[in-house]
Amino acid sequence: MKTKSVKAFGTESTVADLKQMNINRREVTPKDVEIDILFCGVCHSDLHFARNDWGMTQYPVVPGHEIVGRVTQVGSGVSKYKVGDLVAVGCLVDSCRNCDNCNDDLEQYCGSWVGTYGGYDKHLDTTTHGGYSETIVVDEDFVLRVPENLDHAGIAPLLCAGITTWSPLRHWKVGKNSRVAVVGLGGLGHMAIKLAHALGAHVSLFSRSTNKIEDAKALGADEVIISTDEAQMEKAMGRFDLIIDTVPYAHDLNPYLGTLTTSGTLVVVGYLGPLDPMLVTVPMIMGRKSVAGSLIGGIAETQELLDFCGKHNITSDIEVIKIQDINKAYERMLKSDVKYRFVIDMKSLKN
Amino acid sequence: MKTKSVKAFGTESTVADLKQMNINRREVTPKDVEIDILFCGVCHSDLHFARNDWGMTQYPVVPGHEIVGRVTQVGSGVSKYKVGDLVAVGCLVDSCRNCDNCNDDLEQYCGSWVGTYGGYDKHLDTTTHGGYSETIVVDEDFVLRVPENLDHAGIAPLLCAGITTWSPLRHWKVGKNSRVAVVGLGGLGHMAIKLAHALGAHVSLFSRSTNKIEDAKALGADEVIISTDEAQMEKAMGRFDLIIDTVPYAHDLNPYLGTLTTSGTLVVVGYLGPLDPMLVTVPMIMGRKSVAGSLIGGIAETQELLDFCGKHNITSDIEVIKIQDINKAYERMLKSDVKYRFVIDMKSLKN
Repeated sequence: MKTKSVKAFGTESTVADLKQMNINRREVTPKDVEIDILFCGVCHSDLHFARNDWGMTQYPVVPGHEIVGRVTQVGSGVSKYKVGDLVAVGCLVDSCRNCDNCNDDLEQYCGSWVGTYGGYDKHLDTTTHGGYSETIVVDEDFVLRVPENLDHAGIAPLLCAGITTWSPLRHWKVGKNSRVAVVGLGGLGHMAIKLAHALGAHVSLFSRSTNKIEDAKALGADEVIISTDEAQMEKAMGRFDLIIDTVPYAHDLNPYLGTLTTSGTLVVVGYLGPLDPMLVTVPMIMGRKSVAGSLIGGIAETQELLDFCGKHNITSDIEVIKIQDINKAYERMLKSDVKYRFVIDMKSLKN
Repeated sequence: MKTKSVKAFGTESTVADLKQMNINRREVTPKDVEIDILFCGVCHSDLHFARNDWGMTQYPVVPGHEIVGRVTQVGSGVSKYKVGDLVAVGCLVDSCRNCDNCNDDLEQYCGSWVGTYGGYDKHLDTTTHGGYSETIVVDEDFVLRVPENLDHAGIAPLLCAGITTWSPLRHWKVGKNSRVAVVGLGGLGHMAIKLAHALGAHVSLFSRSTNKIEDAKALGADEVIISTDEAQMEKAMGRFDLIIDTVPYAHDLNPYLGTLTTSGTLVVVGYLGPLDPMLVTVPMIMGRKSVAGSLIGGIAETQELLDFCGKHNITSDIEVIKIQDINKAYERMLKSDVKYRFVIDMKSLKN
């Protein structure tokens, strides 16, 4: 298969900084769309993957799965997109297309989904490379249409941080009469607040300190509950239909369970690992409460999110950086020193 | 308020065996139904309560919340029942009747529900006493109608073991296309199998040993999966819409999470305490799976269960005992030496 060499930013080992390199992109096959990448969001997973925190990285790795760009070429069989279209690519670029999950528009739960980076590229028999690059070639079925009215850079984080919070909001049917709480105010948390608010829900943020109250309210939160304040937690008992927990490390979920209403759900979207300290079943049984997980979203649902954001003029709050500053951005991200997402202006790679 | 002294079986301390005693029942108020108790099931909670395992027992305690009997007297304002009706009383005899849960027919989640025993009897300003007694007086709104075609003794366990498994089957919408698995084959587990089967679901039992296969199939299970057999567990991956976990002690839920289908739920109904070992969020996130709890059921739902059992001729598999054998029954229950529920023939108290 013919390939094109393009510039990218990636790393060849666990400890090395990301640096400029060249990677091969395939020439478009009949169903492919070639995209000139304008912006790429920076996700915690990028850093985990670059540093092999999950023990599954194959080097070299080129991260990036919050991609916004313009179509520069389409294959002969592409029907949905044409050259010049503003499009996006999220966390997945393929799936088996044949299982129950794929048939239910839940490609993210397909056992064979292909990650935008670190997945298996069947065309090139190699590892997929992500959006820290000049271009990407993706099957049209995994390309999203982007509303032209939105700020292009601010769209990028919708493709991961946005859909990760949108999917549970939709699955658990959040609407005008819902009471939603969000735990953690980072890339995911700030999108959860914006989206739940736009869906008409009453939105609360749980925070350990008072210094996020103003920011949370500006994002659309109706209130901030200080989780270290016993009186405030007592007042919050039995109130929430859905809690979206975006905290990316092990923490105690038990105090939050009490704040769910009967049949309410706490959904973990930010942390993979054991629930330490242990969950106690008492509040779950005494109120038919659930603890659940949720992973990004399917292609149709991601398109639904982009359309919703277009209609409601929602984008992520971001700090735009040059690709040459990615290693510094990773260090700041580790300290939560960003409101609320870094987005790379990919022009910086072309100069 | 006028009272009647009736014979009962109870205990006056943590360590004392249950023995015959007299308790006071109130004369019927306008909304009350007086019931001559025919049979009373023996629940694990009875034993926990008698021995103060939960630290909340007030002595003397008269257990029993799986009550079947005949109406012997009704108050002037009672409209639903008349003398001679076959009726039942389950785990609750009152609630606030005013909160969201009560208004939603979820009295079991009302913060002020009154237990059939060990609750607060506002009429007598004392502790409520359960069904190990000759009679009970209950507000008609907490009395259930029993289909006459069913075996009277076998009905009793429907009031706790039955409704505890029926409620999650209904809440999670189990029907003809559902795949349900049950963990644990005791009082609750055997009812879960019967009821899920009668709802048309495909039913599997998880068991640690092969010696329950025949019994489970006789109850309506389509298969038994030996949970200690890796190959069988591997084959069960991703299959169940709902798992009803009836095991009454801490155990590892993680192996079962993998056997849930996308968006499936494991509901704990038998164990109050910390989930030891810790739940791991990976399968929850990677398949939008939930771990939930569920507590008995509301009054309307319990009536629905009794009507369903009448139609499908379902009762509990029981061993009938005399009240004088209750202490021996407790010891056997602790060893799971009963198929699957003891039921007391209350005639034995009258002789």
